[in-house]
Amino acid sequence: MKTLIVHAHPEPKSLNSSLTDLAVSTLTAAGHEVQVSDLYAMNWKATVDAADYGPSASAPLRVARDSGRAFDTGTLTADVRAEQEKLLWADTIIFQFPLWWYGMPAILKGWVDRVFTYHFAYGVGEHSATKYGERYGEGTLAGRRALLSVTIGGKESHYDARGINGPIDDLLFPIQHGILYYPGIESLPPFVLYGTDRLTDEDYPDIAKAWQQRLHTLETTEPIPFRKQNFGDYEIPSLQLKEGLEPLGRSGFGLHVRG
Amino acid sequence: MKTLIVHAHPEPKSLNSSLTDLAVSTLTAAGHEVQVSDLYAMNWKATVDAADYGPSASAPLRVARDSGRAFDTGTLTADVRAEQEKLLWADTIIFQFPLWWYGMPAILKGWVDRVFTYHFAYGVGEHSATKYGERYGEGTLAGRRALLSVTIGGKESHYDARGINGPIDDLLFPIQHGILYYPGIESLPPFVLYGTDRLTDEDYPDIAKAWQQRLHTLETTEPIPFRKQNFGDYEIPSLQLKEGLEPLGRSGFGLHVRG
Repeated sequence: MKTLIVHAHPEPKSLNSSLTDLAVSTLTAAGHEVQVSDLYAMNWKATVDAADYGPSASAPLRVARDSGRAFDTGTLTADVRAEQEKLLWADTIIFQFPLWWYGMPAILKGWVDRVFTYHFAYGVGEHSATKYGERYGEGTLAGRRALLSVTIGGKESHYDARGINGPIDDLLFPIQHGILYYPGIESLPPFVLYGTDRLTDEDYPDIAKAWQQRLHTLETTEPIPFRKQNFGDYEIPSLQLKEGLEPLGRSGFGLHVRG
Repeated sequence: MKTLIVHAHPEPKSLNSSLTDLAVSTLTAAGHEVQVSDLYAMNWKATVDAADYGPSASAPLRVARDSGRAFDTGTLTADVRAEQEKLLWADTIIFQFPLWWYGMPAILKGWVDRVFTYHFAYGVGEHSATKYGERYGEGTLAGRRALLSVTIGGKESHYDARGINGPIDDLLFPIQHGILYYPGIESLPPFVLYGTDRLTDEDYPDIAKAWQQRLHTLETTEPIPFRKQNFGDYEIPSLQLKEGLEPLGRSGFGLHVRG
């Protein structure tokens, strides 16, 4: 495997950093190639602005169109081009981050906002009576697999089917489906640690063992079976799921996972 | 009303900026007080790091604990303290932003990550057999109301109950419930504009009219009826919704809205 780890935590001595370090050593020892984008260490610029698009930025700025023109003409900034190259190099992408306010830390959202440009991650492919661009299962990054490795301060019961925060699968849907599957990346079931604000050093060996087990089985783990957009499940161009395809009683985000 | 508008778009001539400008003029003309946090204009720092907590930052950094200590001792940075003061001043908060990759732009997520510190927005209140802190309907910001004003490039049908992107109410749940209701802020139904990548100047008058109508009815609009945490709907401390409370067939995020 060629694995890119996108790491988003400000503290090198954090649990998140330990998990990234362990992923590097475990995958390397197993003969795989690994690159790490340590966003804090890179001082990653989190905010999209006109400077991202160089001479392709128009006045007034139009983010989608201008980012596509900058991608097409090779005038994206070097930091963004480097991340796009890493994504094209990788067959596997691990995202290591703490869940902050039910989503990614801003620095990681800013990596998505800046790297996933028009014509690279969206605005790809033709539109016809049977195809609405290359999205959701097709696209520039098709064939790649991702794994979210997420640390959560709260308790597991707060994140299950009836938990007050909402089910973790639904909280991660906008990342796994909306961000990753859109340009073609499949997601493996996430590696989620709960109650991490109360962990002690004595808890770490079991966590490390569980994480290594996930790392050793990356190639054989089945991804979440999201529905492809252009292969008959959806009306075109409304992109509504066709009637009767969903398992009885399923609704919301769950409609978009095969039964 | 005392309204804080948190504005997150890099282009002063964008639709988002027109909507914020219109909100300022409309609310001011109606006799209300308005403050604007224009995050790009403020060059808002989006990423949480040790510098946020001054002398309260420990080594190694622990984000929750250290942010709480910095809040308690008044050593948060001036930019964060100013935003907390604005939130305490306001009774109404409008968030104006484009939906980027199914969530807030990184600069706005970074506003949340940095301003919503421990002891201010979470880690508030006592724990007992009948109370699990002051969260979800209680908390520092209780009594305030928020309105998300969101522009979306894609089509409305892609965001409805069977649309491929998932229902807009579910995509916004982590913001309206997870971020805002957690420290006590109620959310009005969002103002969402679709297909904004294809709008022309001729579409603007109708949009402006609809937006002004929402602004004029802010005080009389009923908020989304999320369930309060500590008033009998949830088991404590598992925070599971008690059996039988949900309307027939409802699941996922929808469980946490009263029937």
